[in-house]
Amino acid sequence: MTGRFITLEGGEGVGKSTQLKALADAITARGHNVITTREPGGSEGAEAIRALLMQGGEDKWSARAEALLFAAARADHVEKLIRPALARGDWVLCDRFLDSSRAYQGGAGGLSDDDVMTLHRIGSEGMLPDRTLILTLPDNEAESRAAARDGGNVDRFGAKNRAYHRRVAHAFATFAEAEPERIRMINAQGSAGHVTARLIAAIEDFL
Amino acid sequence: MTGRFITLEGGEGVGKSTQLKALADAITARGHNVITTREPGGSEGAEAIRALLMQGGEDKWSARAEALLFAAARADHVEKLIRPALARGDWVLCDRFLDSSRAYQGGAGGLSDDDVMTLHRIGSEGMLPDRTLILTLPDNEAESRAAARDGGNVDRFGAKNRAYHRRVAHAFATFAEAEPERIRMINAQGSAGHVTARLIAAIEDFL
Repeated sequence: MTGRFITLEGGEGVGKSTQLKALADAITARGHNVITTREPGGSEGAEAIRALLMQGGEDKWSARAEALLFAAARADHVEKLIRPALARGDWVLCDRFLDSSRAYQGGAGGLSDDDVMTLHRIGSEGMLPDRTLILTLPDNEAESRAAARDGGNVDRFGAKNRAYHRRVAHAFATFAEAEPERIRMINAQGSAGHVTARLIAAIEDFL
Repeated sequence: MTGRFITLEGGEGVGKSTQLKALADAITARGHNVITTREPGGSEGAEAIRALLMQGGEDKWSARAEALLFAAARADHVEKLIRPALARGDWVLCDRFLDSSRAYQGGAGGLSDDDVMTLHRIGSEGMLPDRTLILTLPDNEAESRAAARDGGNVDRFGAKNRAYHRRVAHAFATFAEAEPERIRMINAQGSAGHVTARLIAAIEDFL
């Protein structure tokens, strides 16, 4: 049996964590071994880098330093957890991956997409997911969900302004248009069960 | 008055720290304001990355992750400390910089020099020192000095084997040959005072 590498992407408050668990359960129910993980983090070294990235003020790191730190965390995560799991035949579901770096440090942060992809080539030999599912919500709905979830406690990324989050959403849409086979936009409106069904439909060809 | 950016390089045990202080004193005596700093580290963010890099086992990080972490630390250091100091007209003396990444993660670690230079372009806009002074000693002398200094307490880099340190030394020699105007090889044998005099002679054109 061949493992598949699936990533979930999207802005703040679109329900990625909830859906990651539901999708993992659905794939497990089809008889696969599933590893769920997240970025930044997912391996011991990458979690240490995550702590540096998520704490502190909004301007703690420049976009350049931030992009390098994300790429370093990803290199460790890919080498220590993702590749070994896939080599065993497990499925890997990851909450955020390369396309978040492209959207946050690239599209919205001021680095070029070429530079973000170059960091990924050097760090992780350019490894791409088999499929990337981007959860999307209208702006206002994502904001109120994120606010309800965080109760005022936001990390460095949640604290950025609305224009920044619009640039992130726009960047995700651009990636999906450029790579329709790998990247699918998934409507995150409606009940959790409905959204999970849409996600499963978008990976049905692998199951 | 224009500040200059001078970096000191070389393998373990060649006397970089001692010489950095002596060189700073000599430049100060000529009427310049001098900032001394080191890599990895030198700014708050970079020192936090340094802790991740220097602690742990020899194989804690892959060469790829390591190169990205060094580039991230350097990006922060350049932006927060080095560029502002030079803009004020200060001199900056730095214990290790880009050429250490080229020698340790490139030459000895398995990354290509192109990739190390690409990380530096993305992280620090390719900023180069005005002059780089590489202190060199015969292999056996450097080893016994490093052993005497560390008293058995070595970090992740000091712990690597002799062949690795030979590759580092060879890489440094190659860089100096390719960029004779920026990079000078300085014989680190003899008394500290003699070595300092050689270092001053190698930057006399800036003083």
